[in-house]
Amino acid sequence: MYMRTSNFLICTQKETPADAEVISHQLMLRAGLIRKLAAGLYTWLPLGLRVLRKVEAIVREEMDRAGAQEISMPVVQPAELWEESGRWEEYGPELLRIKDRHDRDFCLGPTHEEVVTELVRNEIKSYKQLPLNLYQIQTKVRDEIRPRFGIMRSREFLMKDAYSFHETPASLADTYDVMHGAYSAIFTRLGLDFRPVIADTGSIGGSSSHEFHVLAGSGEDDIAFSDGSGYAANVEMAEALPHSDTRAAASDDMAEVATPGVHTIDELANSLAIPAETTVKTLLVKADDDTGSPVALVLRGDHQLNEIKAEKLAGIASPLAMVEEDAARATCGAGFGSLGPVGLAIPVIVDRSAAVLADFVCGANKDGFHLTGVNWERDLPLPRIEDLRNVVQGDPSPDGNGNLQIKRGIEVGHIFQLGTKYSEAMQANVLNENGKNVPMFMGCYGIGVSRIVAAAIEQNHDDNGITWPTAMAPFQLAIVPLNMHKSEAVAACAEELYADCVAAGIDVLMDDRNERPGVKFADMELMGIPHRIVIGDRTLADDKLEYKGRSDDEATLLPREGILAALQERMAS
Amino acid sequence: MYMRTSNFLICTQKETPADAEVISHQLMLRAGLIRKLAAGLYTWLPLGLRVLRKVEAIVREEMDRAGAQEISMPVVQPAELWEESGRWEEYGPELLRIKDRHDRDFCLGPTHEEVVTELVRNEIKSYKQLPLNLYQIQTKVRDEIRPRFGIMRSREFLMKDAYSFHETPASLADTYDVMHGAYSAIFTRLGLDFRPVIADTGSIGGSSSHEFHVLAGSGEDDIAFSDGSGYAANVEMAEALPHSDTRAAASDDMAEVATPGVHTIDELANSLAIPAETTVKTLLVKADDDTGSPVALVLRGDHQLNEIKAEKLAGIASPLAMVEEDAARATCGAGFGSLGPVGLAIPVIVDRSAAVLADFVCGANKDGFHLTGVNWERDLPLPRIEDLRNVVQGDPSPDGNGNLQIKRGIEVGHIFQLGTKYSEAMQANVLNENGKNVPMFMGCYGIGVSRIVAAAIEQNHDDNGITWPTAMAPFQLAIVPLNMHKSEAVAACAEELYADCVAAGIDVLMDDRNERPGVKFADMELMGIPHRIVIGDRTLADDKLEYKGRSDDEATLLPREGILAALQERMAS
Repeated sequence: MYMRTSNFLICTQKETPADAEVISHQLMLRAGLIRKLAAGLYTWLPLGLRVLRKVEAIVREEMDRAGAQEISMPVVQPAELWEESGRWEEYGPELLRIKDRHDRDFCLGPTHEEVVTELVRNEIKSYKQLPLNLYQIQTKVRDEIRPRFGIMRSREFLMKDAYSFHETPASLADTYDVMHGAYSAIFTRLGLDFRPVIADTGSIGGSSSHEFHVLAGSGEDDIAFSDGSGYAANVEMAEALPHSDTRAAASDDMAEVATPGVHTIDELANSLAIPAETTVKTLLVKADDDTGSPVALVLRGDHQLNEIKAEKLAGIASPLAMVEEDAARATCGAGFGSLGPVGLAIPVIVDRSAAVLADFVCGANKDGFHLTGVNWERDLPLPRIEDLRNVVQGDPSPDGNGNLQIKRGIEVGHIFQLGTKYSEAMQANVLNENGKNVPMFMGCYGIGVSRIVAAAIEQNHDDNGITWPTAMAPFQLAIVPLNMHKSEAVAACAEELYADCVAAGIDVLMDDRNERPGVKFADMELMGIPHRIVIGDRTLADDKLEYKGRSDDEATLLPREGILAALQERMAS
Repeated sequence: MYMRTSNFLICTQKETPADAEVISHQLMLRAGLIRKLAAGLYTWLPLGLRVLRKVEAIVREEMDRAGAQEISMPVVQPAELWEESGRWEEYGPELLRIKDRHDRDFCLGPTHEEVVTELVRNEIKSYKQLPLNLYQIQTKVRDEIRPRFGIMRSREFLMKDAYSFHETPASLADTYDVMHGAYSAIFTRLGLDFRPVIADTGSIGGSSSHEFHVLAGSGEDDIAFSDGSGYAANVEMAEALPHSDTRAAASDDMAEVATPGVHTIDELANSLAIPAETTVKTLLVKADDDTGSPVALVLRGDHQLNEIKAEKLAGIASPLAMVEEDAARATCGAGFGSLGPVGLAIPVIVDRSAAVLADFVCGANKDGFHLTGVNWERDLPLPRIEDLRNVVQGDPSPDGNGNLQIKRGIEVGHIFQLGTKYSEAMQANVLNENGKNVPMFMGCYGIGVSRIVAAAIEQNHDDNGITWPTAMAPFQLAIVPLNMHKSEAVAACAEELYADCVAAGIDVLMDDRNERPGVKFADMELMGIPHRIVIGDRTLADDKLEYKGRSDDEATLLPREGILAALQERMAS
């Protein structure tokens, strides 16, 4: 759509707003995409809404293409349904609960599993009507305790939420794959560097889940992904492999060294002038028996325990519980900082990477002493080996292809196989082929539509402002006439080019404001318009116009003749 | 967009739902446009959402064309702003008030004057930035005490609300006219029979206002409109003119007749065997003095007092207060039913139409008696003449062109000149040309987007279901193959035509369900698809297909050759 700045509300600001912590929030305020109404509540200005609508349109097109059907459910939801699913009690204060004028309980929907399940259990009676995938693009409300980062973590946000219904887990898995593909298509079309990552299913329940993350330094999550394949997972979820399957032969003798005042791995490595990766640390956690007796977990000194992995292991209490120092001393003969696996009479589990160490250093189970030159199967038996740690940069990829990179990601999408959690609780059944009433299998699929706008800026900006991917830019082209109100030649050329762009269907913004060139340039760069053409008397005298791509270092002079085709070529590339 | 019924959630119902009072509510449920979640809360199913989106798109296009700029404000609004405008106290329990987790007051916005004024007072500083017209299309919440008529009076609904800001009343009037034109364009494009009617400005305040009504028998408002011009007004607002400017000469003598037991005009007309329009009735209301002394209002017997008009008159208490019967008797010497204007010693005001009567009948101010053959300026002085009554069918149009028709209307749009009500209360000022800080003049412009869908059905339906105007139909064409799953010829022809329609960009629904023909026909008619083509072996044998327009009595056979062009021709007409 075409527009003149004289008819378009431009609300750019020079100063970085004081209370905006992250760059996307700063730039969304400065470029005039949004304005704050109250904590976590934002108005989308015309410029911002254009971007949001572009994202929304791509999401809708790909959902439709994937066979999902759009519906629109109410924002206000009756408490009764949440009581049926059990979430009226379970859900925290993020659920904004309200009472209507008749004192009946309702909530503002942060998500719509209950409502859609109520709809489908009433409308769908037979397996023949399945599978069914329903979605909506809707304002959601979540009463964040501390809204922050602008629209990234706001109380009102635009969400695409989809819910699929199936007779069988296999059908659910099929649709799940289709949604995985649709999400990949969406983020690819948006022009974002993203990763679908294997995710923990967390509190929502269910059996399989992927998050879609836009990679950006300011992300809240650590994502591990292979440099040699499509593998990606949340750091907590990624399987940690050792760099080698085999252990070097022992070359040193085991020896006890005094390490007075040494309590941490850093202190140990410094004190002995050795790399931390040649040490191991020993952590004591409680077993899952009645007494919570200690189990020793042994990891390489530079690695971090992954609590999610540990508490899933047989024999270990879940949630994970650390043993107190008194109990550790009673069991091992030393306090934290001097524990080690040698000679322990309790169950020991060793991480895969620690299990392939030779000549390693560990606590001596004697305060102020460590052992050096320790070797498995010589100085102590090789214990049970498990995956106990978080992956680190450079680890082998679990799929065997390439090595892991770790970057920060912003979650913008999430797909879940819910199974029958909601359909069983709410008796959402269908008759199957055998005439038997069975609960439907469900999947749910969310995209944070407004969040994508912020994530895109986190990934695409420079010192001058936003550098939108083409598909998200509010306008493709800015026409910036200089001294338009004084120079007839400039005005005529600008109007002619603008009319040509309008006729060609280009998303063009004509900056016909009576402002200084510097103000116009700064605004167009801040707003991130990918292509800019400047029209001034100086270059017009040579029948030239000045072109600059948003990320170009320098402007280029283009002949006035054939300028539209030249611009179209640049916009298509 | 094209679709197959096998991939499209069809939720038609044969039975009329018991709790749906109006036809649009019944048909929206039966055709599967909406489903009820709770009182006044509805989910839009895929079929209904297609219609809603078509309406939304037309509204957006015309608003953009009229120079309005789209924004999106939060649904949740802080109480502080409503306290500034004074509406936190004024607004009734329709305003759904909520508290967030920090116990702060918010409400769910039924309208956004406060929020947009807050935005504009922060962003706009100079008259040079005006006029400005901002709109949004958004879910609104109003906690109706008794939600009813489906989405016609629901608690959540989709609204287009626009707000304009101006330096001068003249600029406001200009934009108001532009919005009037845009609204007319919207309802014309939607294919609805509508009237823009002069409206009371009511509680929202301000100086000028029009409502846009879709005419339909089930409407809640009576609309008076001229059959000879574009004049239209709410019945309460329309100026009532007499049929004649002159009074006939007196021909009877005044005489007293006994009318025992007569209390009403109907009884009087029956008792004397005369038309009600030759009688007058006399009502006593209180004056606006300290004692509320009586004033007599005299109207033709068959006319109704318009209280809004009466209470605006000088000398009459506002709000209008009727005099009690005891006080009437003390003043006039008779009770209700026998009052009349002859010989009264209190102020009398006569309606224009009663003032041109000759030889009329009225109460004798003596219980059980009336006077006949009464004439102004002979038997009593002609008192002050005013417009006191509601217009009736056949009255002269106030603009001098044609006569008034009265139909019921459904309000789907409303435009207001608000003036400075909000800008003064909230200090939304700009610097004018003289460098003086002045409050902005504001207009507001609403359209009930979801309500339009119901109103359109109230106006466009028959015994078989909905008869959508073209622009609102969820699909333009239904292809109904008979026995498709058994006849290869039918399947091949249907698939070919469907593919042709898809390629031609036709909104086509292919009914590929394995259902009986009667079920398919009934569903397509109920859903209101304007054009239907039936493909069956019987007509295929003659290379013919059966076409039927939604409101055609009979189907027509069309040659299979060139069928697409033939359909396109019919769809364009």
